[in-house]
Amino acid sequence: MTYQVFDTTLRDGAQREGISYSVVDKLAVARLLDELGVGFIEGGWPGAMPKDTEFFERARSELDLKHAVLVAFGSTRKAGVAVREDKQIQALLDAQTPVLCLVAKSDIRHVTRALRTTAEENLAMVRDSVEYLVSQGRRVFVDCEHFFDGYRFDSAYTASVVRTALDAGAERVVMCDTNGGMLPSQITAAVTGLMSELGVDGDRLGIHCQNDTSCAVANTVAAVEAGVTHFQCTANGYGERPGNADLFAVLGNLQLKLGLPVLPEGCLEKMVRVSHAIAEIANIAPDTHQAYVGAAAFAHKAGLHASAIKVDPLLYNHVEPSVVGNDMRILVTEMAGRASIELKSRELGLDLAGHPEALARVTEQVKDLEAHGWSFEAADASFELLVRSQLAGGVTRPFTLESYRATVEHREDGSVISEATVKVRVRGERVIATAEGNGPVNALDEALRVALRRHYPALADFELADYKVRILEGTHGTQAVTRVLVETAAAGRDWTTVGVHENVVEASWHALVDALTYGLVPVPA
Amino acid sequence: MTYQVFDTTLRDGAQREGISYSVVDKLAVARLLDELGVGFIEGGWPGAMPKDTEFFERARSELDLKHAVLVAFGSTRKAGVAVREDKQIQALLDAQTPVLCLVAKSDIRHVTRALRTTAEENLAMVRDSVEYLVSQGRRVFVDCEHFFDGYRFDSAYTASVVRTALDAGAERVVMCDTNGGMLPSQITAAVTGLMSELGVDGDRLGIHCQNDTSCAVANTVAAVEAGVTHFQCTANGYGERPGNADLFAVLGNLQLKLGLPVLPEGCLEKMVRVSHAIAEIANIAPDTHQAYVGAAAFAHKAGLHASAIKVDPLLYNHVEPSVVGNDMRILVTEMAGRASIELKSRELGLDLAGHPEALARVTEQVKDLEAHGWSFEAADASFELLVRSQLAGGVTRPFTLESYRATVEHREDGSVISEATVKVRVRGERVIATAEGNGPVNALDEALRVALRRHYPALADFELADYKVRILEGTHGTQAVTRVLVETAAAGRDWTTVGVHENVVEASWHALVDALTYGLVPVPA
Repeated sequence: MTYQVFDTTLRDGAQREGISYSVVDKLAVARLLDELGVGFIEGGWPGAMPKDTEFFERARSELDLKHAVLVAFGSTRKAGVAVREDKQIQALLDAQTPVLCLVAKSDIRHVTRALRTTAEENLAMVRDSVEYLVSQGRRVFVDCEHFFDGYRFDSAYTASVVRTALDAGAERVVMCDTNGGMLPSQITAAVTGLMSELGVDGDRLGIHCQNDTSCAVANTVAAVEAGVTHFQCTANGYGERPGNADLFAVLGNLQLKLGLPVLPEGCLEKMVRVSHAIAEIANIAPDTHQAYVGAAAFAHKAGLHASAIKVDPLLYNHVEPSVVGNDMRILVTEMAGRASIELKSRELGLDLAGHPEALARVTEQVKDLEAHGWSFEAADASFELLVRSQLAGGVTRPFTLESYRATVEHREDGSVISEATVKVRVRGERVIATAEGNGPVNALDEALRVALRRHYPALADFELADYKVRILEGTHGTQAVTRVLVETAAAGRDWTTVGVHENVVEASWHALVDALTYGLVPVPA
Repeated sequence: MTYQVFDTTLRDGAQREGISYSVVDKLAVARLLDELGVGFIEGGWPGAMPKDTEFFERARSELDLKHAVLVAFGSTRKAGVAVREDKQIQALLDAQTPVLCLVAKSDIRHVTRALRTTAEENLAMVRDSVEYLVSQGRRVFVDCEHFFDGYRFDSAYTASVVRTALDAGAERVVMCDTNGGMLPSQITAAVTGLMSELGVDGDRLGIHCQNDTSCAVANTVAAVEAGVTHFQCTANGYGERPGNADLFAVLGNLQLKLGLPVLPEGCLEKMVRVSHAIAEIANIAPDTHQAYVGAAAFAHKAGLHASAIKVDPLLYNHVEPSVVGNDMRILVTEMAGRASIELKSRELGLDLAGHPEALARVTEQVKDLEAHGWSFEAADASFELLVRSQLAGGVTRPFTLESYRATVEHREDGSVISEATVKVRVRGERVIATAEGNGPVNALDEALRVALRRHYPALADFELADYKVRILEGTHGTQAVTRVLVETAAAGRDWTTVGVHENVVEASWHALVDALTYGLVPVPA
């Protein structure tokens, strides 16, 4: 049996309140999902959203996917418009993806009251759109919006939409619980009902669940147990209202509980890292209590069971945590353990397994830093610097700071001016430099470049590609701190660094210094 | 059919990392749960936890419960100790609750490897403890720990524990998915298997699920569908690791989806209030995306569907939000059109429908601001100021800015200092004020408060609750800009404002000014 893991983090998941991806964010999320081994990445709605149009354009040259194919999302043609004249349909073709996913109305009440067209025209819209796009060489999936509500209200009409899409050449028809109101038993009843009514098997069907009853994961699993082999999820369950089915919980359940081979070999253990990295990109704090991938997913309050857990941890864990890239935690402390640090270092090409003392020091340092609000989940470059500083050779810092001052002035004429001065030592020389910038951090960045450029001409190519700030609430009586992530790009590669401090400018300074250091220090062969 | 709603927020739910209730907290949570209409409130483990002993003591005089009875939790007697000699058992009686809930081992592996006793002694522990406590006039429930893992590994032994407890006089035996690894289909299979094997019906059984597969709610519902009439949950799903079955989602599903009368008449609509109040007491931010009760549970990104939602909101909501005490919300997004702006304004209590020109101006302004990177989706207060400024009366700004200057210095000794000076006009007076802060924005905030406090003493209560920063990529040749969201809290309410500028400090300034303006300007009746 071949399963289709269809991720819609970048399309339906982006409907979550507060999420607003840049095109660069979208490309980064797509790379992470591909690494995890999903089969399909729905990237957005070209035509409807200018950002999505640009994403598909850039994806053609900038994404080199190993496992996944890209999917563009759109709608069936407009009522009363010829499919070839429909601009939105044309934009789908222009996205040049091998697969298209079309949303179609399948609840008769939505056809007549929301779309305000007839039952027949809606079927024609489905038929025309699918046939046309298939004739243009595309694989076409059809998302039946409000499938379950429709099927319960008027199963004959909803089934006719499915039949029409399949007959027109759709590879898959996806049953969507758009309003998210279903329970697993209701999903099972509708899916088996439809399959026997139409005589189709689960290889032509898909499932897409929203989480309004807190059952999206269970509903997705129920549909797969009923024979459906295509499922649509989002990373961390991001999505509108209570969200979508969480990709990671669904993958864990299907692969570890039901023994279904949904991901390529060796990919499941990337779940924690991919989950947290996507959270960072979305600028949403990772959910500590998320199933499988949360920092507390295998955290046990010590006490009652502590010694029993030592006897046999598996008596107290529903799965072996390392299988999904997680760690068991006994005390209420930091999340990093030796195993995950070793694993991550190996991913970066650094061998810590052969250096137990260095591994111990790095683990200690990471624990200490994480207790103060640092997070290396999305800051590989800072993590790599930290590891390399503990290995033979260490890291040579390109300069040392004496002091800096950054100023922002809003003047009487309404203009806003930022200026910074840095005093540093570079290769024995004391250098003072001042520069202006868009903001205090940019001004500091500019001043530092002025100070260093004679010694490090390569700096001219470094570009500050992204900058993210999060305030972390104080815990255990400590003060709130600010965490800054800086993404730097140069010569076709990019890297992310992290800084933490109660002062946003100082936190940014840490991340900037790491960014320049990482880019300037030669990588060992 | 009578259902037993058993809440264990105060016992099992308190295992959640970071939760630490005082006795007063526990009394307050118990009152809220009683108001909601649950039947049983498990208050803690007297004897084992001094705070819990005190809770039961004070509860006798301070709690006047309308719907619920209190339950004390404990364990079966120790191996090799006579039940009357067991201090922990005695502490249970001392709690003077009408109901006791005893945890018992029911997985043979845990009996031999964790408890390190024999299969027979474990059964005797169950029998002795239940018989003794029943003889003392108590109703006794037995929680079978690791029931599902045990039943799958050695169903005969696990069933014998259940049989023993029932024969000894336990009113209910509760099947616990302690490690939380089950899926709904597995719950159904085990529950129906046990019922037919022992010939007991669901009125003697209970269910208790942990959320490690993200299926705790679905698992609880599956057990009830299989006939079980007693279910144990926690408010907001608080609990160890990924938590327990969320009481509110379970109640919503059973009552609204399956039509089961689980709560007294008129209680379901208290869910949102009780959920948020318990979150406040637990000092955990309410989960915006929680099913049924989250602030975003019925929040729709308007754009596409706005006009359809106006036609019939129920086409887009799985239940009527007011039934659970929630509200529908329309988010103002990049795709905002007139319809969604009108809907959103109505939600804020502002009538734009009767003012077509104001509506047109607001729509124009929102589109223009959004094209420059503003987003009102998470910034209701800024949106409300914008709308009100276009309506009769407008918005009176509490001050006008002349200029400000903010500085961050990293000194040679490593210390980091932030300072800001603001020059403003307040009610005709020119005021200059300077303050220090953790960072430039905090310093500006402090300086502004110093400048305004004489005229606006209410400012003293305003608290900067959260601060988020996002860099937005430039598109179509425009420069990158920074978007800042500021959440302010005062007097039990909070509001979010937004600012956008290429300079992070200036963007923060905009959001701060809106925050203070919103908090200070009287809301029209």
